Amino acid sequence: MCRWAAYLGEPIFLEDIVSRPAHSLIRQSQGATRCVTPVNADGFGIAWYGERAEPGLYRDVMPAWSDPNLRSLVGQVRSRLFLAHVRASTGTATSRNNCHPFTAGRWSFMHNGQFGGYDSFRRHADVLIRDDLYQHRKGATDSEALFLVALGEGLDQDPQRAMECAVGRMEALARQKGVAPHVRAACALSDGERLYVLRYSSDDHAPSLYYRWSDSRQGWAVVSEPLETDEGDWQEVAAGSFCVFGATDVRIGAFNPQNLTLAA
Amino acid sequence: MCRWAAYLGEPIFLEDIVSRPAHSLIRQSQGATRCVTPVNADGFGIAWYGERAEPGLYRDVMPAWSDPNLRSLVGQVRSRLFLAHVRASTGTATSRNNCHPFTAGRWSFMHNGQFGGYDSFRRHADVLIRDDLYQHRKGATDSEALFLVALGEGLDQDPQRAMECAVGRMEALARQKGVAPHVRAACALSDGERLYVLRYSSDDHAPSLYYRWSDSRQGWAVVSEPLETDEGDWQEVAAGSFCVFGATDVRIGAFNPQNLTLAA
Amino acid sequence: MCRWAAYLGEPIFLEDIVSRPAHSLIRQSQGATRCVTPVNADGFGIAWYGERAEPGLYRDVMPAWSDPNLRSLVGQVRSRLFLAHVRASTGTATSRNNCHPFTAGRWSFMHNGQFGGYDSFRRHADVLIRDDLYQHRKGATDSEALFLVALGEGLDQDPQRAMECAVGRMEALARQKGVAPHVRAACALSDGERLYVLRYSSDDHAPSLYYRWSDSRQGWAVVSEPLETDEGDWQEVAAGSFCVFGATDVRIGAFNPQNLTLAA
Amino acid sequence: MCRWAAYLGEPIFLEDIVSRPAHSLIRQSQGATRCVTPVNADGFGIAWYGERAEPGLYRDVMPAWSDPNLRSLVGQVRSRLFLAHVRASTGTATSRNNCHPFTAGRWSFMHNGQFGGYDSFRRHADVLIRDDLYQHRKGATDSEALFLVALGEGLDQDPQRAMECAVGRMEALARQKGVAPHVRAACALSDGERLYVLRYSSDDHAPSLYYRWSDSRQGWAVVSEPLETDEGDWQEVAAGSFCVFGATDVRIGAFNPQNLTLAA
Repeated sequence: MCRWAAYLGEPIFLEDIVSRPAHSLIRQSQGATRCVTPVNADGFGIAWYGERAEPGLYRDVMPAWSDPNLRSLVGQVRSRLFLAHVRASTGTATSRNNCHPFTAGRWSFMHNGQFGGYDSFRRHADVLIRDDLYQHRKGATDSEALFLVALGEGLDQDPQRAMECAVGRMEALARQKGVAPHVRAACALSDGERLYVLRYSSDDHAPSLYYRWSDSRQGWAVVSEPLETDEGDWQEVAAGSFCVFGATDVRIGAFNPQNLTLAA
Repeated sequence: MCRWAAYLGEPIFLEDIVSRPAHSLIRQSQGATRCVTPVNADGFGIAWYGERAEPGLYRDVMPAWSDPNLRSLVGQVRSRLFLAHVRASTGTATSRNNCHPFTAGRWSFMHNGQFGGYDSFRRHADVLIRDDLYQHRKGATDSEALFLVALGEGLDQDPQRAMECAVGRMEALARQKGVAPHVRAACALSDGERLYVLRYSSDDHAPSLYYRWSDSRQGWAVVSEPLETDEGDWQEVAAGSFCVFGATDVRIGAFNPQNLTLAA
Repeated sequence: MCRWAAYLGEPIFLEDIVSRPAHSLIRQSQGATRCVTPVNADGFGIAWYGERAEPGLYRDVMPAWSDPNLRSLVGQVRSRLFLAHVRASTGTATSRNNCHPFTAGRWSFMHNGQFGGYDSFRRHADVLIRDDLYQHRKGATDSEALFLVALGEGLDQDPQRAMECAVGRMEALARQKGVAPHVRAACALSDGERLYVLRYSSDDHAPSLYYRWSDSRQGWAVVSEPLETDEGDWQEVAAGSFCVFGATDVRIGAFNPQNLTLAA
Repeated sequence: MCRWAAYLGEPIFLEDIVSRPAHSLIRQSQGATRCVTPVNADGFGIAWYGERAEPGLYRDVMPAWSDPNLRSLVGQVRSRLFLAHVRASTGTATSRNNCHPFTAGRWSFMHNGQFGGYDSFRRHADVLIRDDLYQHRKGATDSEALFLVALGEGLDQDPQRAMECAVGRMEALARQKGVAPHVRAACALSDGERLYVLRYSSDDHAPSLYYRWSDSRQGWAVVSEPLETDEGDWQEVAAGSFCVFGATDVRIGAFNPQNLTLAA
């Protein structure tokens, strides 16, 4: 499992989410409290939107707490929309290309969770990626595959439907060739305008996920774990939800992956 | 392109090939003389056979000349059979998982060369990898794909035939979807007993390749570029050859990739 | 030796200096034309000033051309004042803490050149660093020592005098304990307001250094090598000069290191 | 704090200490049980003696558990004498040069513990290093300084006395300029023949330290934490002890740092 945090709103320094809060993402990398792997030290990454359509991307393989470049970057860069992730590998190698977020064009994507037995159907997952998107396949994670499959299913046109297709296809592979739990997923993705978030699992252990509107920041934070213990107004994202965060509003609906049966 | 060196014979310190000769592999990483990219600084790797059936593997992303771990390792480790590689990327990212050699079980493999337009048929190349070998697909290079395709074609049973199949299949993809030059390859591979080497290209620019028996070392060196300028007895491996080096003998034959036509 | 580039003016994307010009700093890392070491691949770094008094700092040990984080960062970050450096080690280890620029508080500093025989008087150079500044001594280079000695000599009050003192003290050590050439230096430093540049050597081989005002950018570039071959209006900084670049003006004077004789 | 393990005896694969035991050093890097910092993920290192007088050295900045090079190396290299360390920084940067063990000539050294307020007297500690040994000062840790001071005090002639001098000098600095606790230290060092170990603190919280003779391996293991929970015969090293391990014997005596008063 992993921990992540995302933000959409008036521009803030990345450190206001990543490193300054009492239970910031970097603190969670050292001692997460709401998941089975308290240490998330197998690399990290941030994707942020600035003046360009495509996001910036910074990823490295050391623990987030020990990288001076990260510390400097989050203290300098101010952004209205960013994704940040600390990784605890579920098996795949620790390498930059396996660190979240992943990006392609204007899209960014990150994932906390897993597809059970992924190693046994990795090749089949890769086959689901559309030919013209395969150039973006740089690492070996289930998460990157999920993202690229979703891109091919039409993230640009209908993000929710594309994610429902992609999760459905991967879940079908996991059911056919993998092991339980077939899917556990808390995902955040963005096209540079909106922040899309989903929480879903095929069993009843969906990864923890919370969101909160900050009046002082005039922005949304969506996080694996609340950033401050004394903020009582974090809302839990219900399992089986898809959320669309806009500048000042959020729309939450049911997330229903396509129920697919694969031909043997 | 890249540069590489391999050794089979009485155990020697890796540094006797990697760093001590006047035109050692590390020197070639700074200033190769027989290829178009004189600087080969996009990572490096060594695979060596010791007491176990599986080889050791050490790879990193900095230039070979600047890594103190490498310098220390090649001064300590003595081996009867090893592969060493310095990389100049032809496009794929600089990451440990894209550095040569690649290993799977007792096999090790490295490659200098390229498949033209590989990015446009990467997914098709991945599909050629056998399902049970896909767990070894960690990076994104054409070279790793070639190795894993060859494993699936029976490296264990008949190395030459397996390589002829694998190169043939990849060449067919390159001809169908890629760009010229379709194949340029100097490969070394080993099962821990013998050292197999091939030099081939679909045009008339096969990567440079030489070999030499050393009486003082009682061993074979096979290299992209001769290690000493005053050793006049380096033999060029002819383009279109497959060589099998044993403890004291070498058998050289024609290398003929399968001529395949792919269905559209 | 190394190569570097600095900018002061209207905010531009870092890539406009670092990676986009025909002979950009990254190109110079692969093939510098005006110094004896064409390849500058022993790490790199950038320091940039944004909304805060202290600069951001990003440094890593791979060649500048192969780091995707750097590529992304220079395409996202826009700055009115920044320093960028690619390193060719003159002996010290390749490590992040030995990469330029160095920073302390609001100051940033980078250096191309060397102090002859520095290894033989490193400890004596460290002793010159003021006690309260020693916390900033993270690596082992002569360049970082020079910067910290200069800070202790009053960079805040009088940058030129502080650099003349610091270079003078280091040169005295080199003359007493080192080897020729005693000093070769092209330095850039900044307090977040002005850009200070010096070119000096104790022999007649000062590192190359040029500057140019760009009307289109409304800013100054100071570089080891001109960024475009078709821009004829690059001015050479004369050896033995100290330059103070302001928003639209430059003041150039003689740089005379203190002539010190050390007690044995 | 950190965790470490050392071995002297009949040659074994490094993995027999580093990664295979139920509470191996790598396990301790993820969940140490006898120190206040359960996670020791700020880099790691191994120094091992082979055929040469000088030890091999492999260090890197990621967590020990996530480095495939380390996993491969400890499975290939067999040694009669080695030191292995996982680091939890007490403030100094995570960099290879700050990772233990440190080596100089035939000596290797590692340390678990700290000198209180070291940042406030770092420069004074550096001044204690002998001029001709200063070339080995590559990082910024108190541990490396302690090692180099001890080398200058005569490790070659009398290891215990040299360590008593070095610890005494550093402790005097800590008492004069630092903060409590002034010294906490569990150190292992070797000249390639014997394994020297000390456990000491200026308060009553010396870092945990145990040793055990293995009949099956015919060797000594000295460790921060016992490697197997079902081995009841681990002996605690008493605080204030200096141990000299030979092939089959150990000599344990009192460790009394020199009581020095520094002139103001």
